[in-house]
Amino acid sequence: MPAVRPPRGKRAAARGPSPRRPPGYTLQELVALLGGAVNAGAECRVHAVAPLERAGEGEIAVASQAAQRTQLSTTRAAALVVPPSLQPEARRPCIVTDHPYVYFARLLTLLHPEPPFRAGVDRTAVIEPSAKVSRLASIGPGAVIGRGAAIGPGARIGAGCVIGGGVRVGAHTRLHANVTVYPGCTVGARVIMHSGAVIGADGFGHAPADGAWIKIPQIGGVSIGDDVEIGANTAIDRGTLDDTVIEEGVKLDNLIQIGHNVRVGAHTAIAGCVAIAGSTKIGRRCRIGGAAAISGHLVIADDVTISGGTSVMKSIEAPGIYTSLPPLLPHREWQRNTVRMRQLERLVERIAALEKRLAKEESAR
Amino acid sequence: MPAVRPPRGKRAAARGPSPRRPPGYTLQELVALLGGAVNAGAECRVHAVAPLERAGEGEIAVASQAAQRTQLSTTRAAALVVPPSLQPEARRPCIVTDHPYVYFARLLTLLHPEPPFRAGVDRTAVIEPSAKVSRLASIGPGAVIGRGAAIGPGARIGAGCVIGGGVRVGAHTRLHANVTVYPGCTVGARVIMHSGAVIGADGFGHAPADGAWIKIPQIGGVSIGDDVEIGANTAIDRGTLDDTVIEEGVKLDNLIQIGHNVRVGAHTAIAGCVAIAGSTKIGRRCRIGGAAAISGHLVIADDVTISGGTSVMKSIEAPGIYTSLPPLLPHREWQRNTVRMRQLERLVERIAALEKRLAKEESAR
Amino acid sequence: MPAVRPPRGKRAAARGPSPRRPPGYTLQELVALLGGAVNAGAECRVHAVAPLERAGEGEIAVASQAAQRTQLSTTRAAALVVPPSLQPEARRPCIVTDHPYVYFARLLTLLHPEPPFRAGVDRTAVIEPSAKVSRLASIGPGAVIGRGAAIGPGARIGAGCVIGGGVRVGAHTRLHANVTVYPGCTVGARVIMHSGAVIGADGFGHAPADGAWIKIPQIGGVSIGDDVEIGANTAIDRGTLDDTVIEEGVKLDNLIQIGHNVRVGAHTAIAGCVAIAGSTKIGRRCRIGGAAAISGHLVIADDVTISGGTSVMKSIEAPGIYTSLPPLLPHREWQRNTVRMRQLERLVERIAALEKRLAKEESAR
Repeated sequence: MPAVRPPRGKRAAARGPSPRRPPGYTLQELVALLGGAVNAGAECRVHAVAPLERAGEGEIAVASQAAQRTQLSTTRAAALVVPPSLQPEARRPCIVTDHPYVYFARLLTLLHPEPPFRAGVDRTAVIEPSAKVSRLASIGPGAVIGRGAAIGPGARIGAGCVIGGGVRVGAHTRLHANVTVYPGCTVGARVIMHSGAVIGADGFGHAPADGAWIKIPQIGGVSIGDDVEIGANTAIDRGTLDDTVIEEGVKLDNLIQIGHNVRVGAHTAIAGCVAIAGSTKIGRRCRIGGAAAISGHLVIADDVTISGGTSVMKSIEAPGIYTSLPPLLPHREWQRNTVRMRQLERLVERIAALEKRLAKEESAR
Repeated sequence: MPAVRPPRGKRAAARGPSPRRPPGYTLQELVALLGGAVNAGAECRVHAVAPLERAGEGEIAVASQAAQRTQLSTTRAAALVVPPSLQPEARRPCIVTDHPYVYFARLLTLLHPEPPFRAGVDRTAVIEPSAKVSRLASIGPGAVIGRGAAIGPGARIGAGCVIGGGVRVGAHTRLHANVTVYPGCTVGARVIMHSGAVIGADGFGHAPADGAWIKIPQIGGVSIGDDVEIGANTAIDRGTLDDTVIEEGVKLDNLIQIGHNVRVGAHTAIAGCVAIAGSTKIGRRCRIGGAAAISGHLVIADDVTISGGTSVMKSIEAPGIYTSLPPLLPHREWQRNTVRMRQLERLVERIAALEKRLAKEESAR
Repeated sequence: MPAVRPPRGKRAAARGPSPRRPPGYTLQELVALLGGAVNAGAECRVHAVAPLERAGEGEIAVASQAAQRTQLSTTRAAALVVPPSLQPEARRPCIVTDHPYVYFARLLTLLHPEPPFRAGVDRTAVIEPSAKVSRLASIGPGAVIGRGAAIGPGARIGAGCVIGGGVRVGAHTRLHANVTVYPGCTVGARVIMHSGAVIGADGFGHAPADGAWIKIPQIGGVSIGDDVEIGANTAIDRGTLDDTVIEEGVKLDNLIQIGHNVRVGAHTAIAGCVAIAGSTKIGRRCRIGGAAAISGHLVIADDVTISGGTSVMKSIEAPGIYTSLPPLLPHREWQRNTVRMRQLERLVERIAALEKRLAKEESAR
């Protein structure tokens, strides 16, 4: 079976230098490969990325924020990556770039590549005869591929994954262990799904009838675009009639709930534990903080940022940052304060009464 | 092995018209099967349900809300289902019913039935010899059925499910792939559990002792009534001494946490990401919005509605709608406002001082 | 294969008296084994623990709180465990102890021990040849043990678990069914992980570039100390460069999200549905209530208690209880109140205007 390199470098198990090129790279070579400018020490050779505070011989560290200024003067890293603004503080050979955080990503990919994976189907996997699995895909132990499903070249289906009938998984997509994709869903190319993710469970649709509930069958699917990442234990429900849609480049963290018929616009990033109720449309390039909750049937514009922990109960029409959070207080203070919070109406009445009485005084004078 | 039809229509993989009866149904036939009245076009034939905005030839669409009025005049659906109030707007053959949303459920079940499933045990499943699996049940690839467990007729245990020792699963219950049920739990009939659901993990019980924690063994189980639905990645903990109880007809969405010793009353519906702490009793026919959080050891009355995102810290004795949400604001406004929220006590003091001073002025006059 | 007793008593499936010693224990024997003092009825024999309200013949019940006082007088339990303060109310033979809740834990462990488990590897498990599995460990059906992983003596890996390459699992650690541990993570001794837990998925790190996101490879791991318990469907992400660290004795409930590079201090207990964003450091012996959310890059001191549902947006430097919760109100009251909450700035202006006008009146007199 042919060995296949993953499309993007992500190192799986062993930490440490690249196995391919033990001596690492000189700064000059890094600049040739990844961009940036080297000011001094072009021949300095590094083989690993490490944090400023513990980087040592052969290791390169990245500083991207002004807050790291003091660490720059004390680091023992062999070399540094810095933005122009921090260059004066850098006492080590360094690469200067306008986008150190992007450089950090590229450096990790280059110096800590994932080991190549072996294409092929584990002997304990269960593949329905009508499924089409690319000869260049990898199917892990105990994985199940349903009737008529199609797994693209370079795709990796981890151990214990269950892929339902008719599912299409794009090229170079990686499902880590124990992911479940229900029948009829579509997954793009270069998608990453983490363990425990569940794609395509029934949306929460029940019609009330005589004090009980009648289930609304959910006959839509889930459509996931290219380059999407989906975190551990995140759930995306199938649509009622049409698909729930996650557009290309969306990044979803862990333990997120996406209700049925939702659409998440391209390149939106959503942090952990966010809940998005059914039929809501989220714009493109939005950023949603952890543990935020968004009600159903809303429309959130493009380029909206929602702070962590915020509850969104109505549509947001303009880009900007939105927040709804009560203040954090020592508990005793909170107890007093919360009584007042319940009594705002009464406070307003007291102010209005004062205004009236004072006006009377003033006119009486 | 005998083929078995599922008890309620849920279509699994392929979308599209019913495989059983390609020509579909006339409106007259639908009314005979499902109720309602047909006003015109009784011979109009439909084979699929579609949303108003994209329904076309051979497709029937359902309008249940006044907000869909304008769509009614432009839809290209072959036929419509409407409540009496929307009938004047309907320019297509239509079925009139007082409960269009329930009709929608029934129509989907009829026109988009699930394919029949095949009873039998997959050759890769692991069944303990002492387990009792009905000849009419289906056990998927890699599923594990523990010692002394009992799986009822028509039940379907999906791929990768792990059913602990002594568990009883009722007739026609369906566990989608990768569900875990711990030993000693009881699951009723016609229950649906979605992937990643975990039933019967230990309740969170630890006794503090000398700065560390001693685990309280959790020897109760979980008891799940008939016709319950449990969403993806939802967790229901086993009780400490007695069972955690989910009564009949309860509907739980995804990523819900139900603590140990909780009881959820019959026909209550709980949306995604809700957290219910230990020993709380939820009444019957409650509706709990997404991402709400309910503290432990509370009692919530029957017929209570709790808004999404709401934190409930004390028992609720009367039916009604309850809410606790801070207002959503543009971030800069929130920053100013939150300072004031912390200073309510100071505001009250200023008002009281004003009242005192003004009274003095008034009496001085 | 040798039979191994679990290190701590947790009973798995069948409820009821200990199979080892059918006649149970007298109170005198219990006191000799577990401490406490017996005041009367030293020969009274019990074989099971039950709650006060339903305990009967042969059963012992534990009362730890003043609120249980009235139940003490009516209980039909054969014997009781009480603190000195409740002893006067106890009309049954009883054991008196200063720590009845700890006693409860020990009593359950003694009277309801888990059945011994059988060491060995299920024939359907997939073990990489380079993995080192102790002869005293148990590997369940369909479990997968990756390349170079090491499973300690007395460890139990449940059905469907996937253990990545290079993972080390300590002695007597128990992973319930369907747990996933990514490559390169370290799990201590006597750890308990519940089903659906995911350890070591990629942290949520993406660098913005040209309106899209570039993935930051996450090359750190997760390090879990001894005696940690991790709840169902909880996710702990691997670190970016260094490990995410869960120190010894930490107790995590279900559906918790721990971001990359987080450190949770020893013996901290975190209830269900809590979200902790990346790089935050939580102190030792903290208690975090359910559904709380903690922002990234914060430092929370030792011995801090955070109320359930609370959002923490800044570091906490001193021990104590902290809360941020809006008041719970009937929905109509909330609607009026929330309008006022948005208008606090306006209220402050009205008060300031009143103060100014009143001062003018006062000086005019």
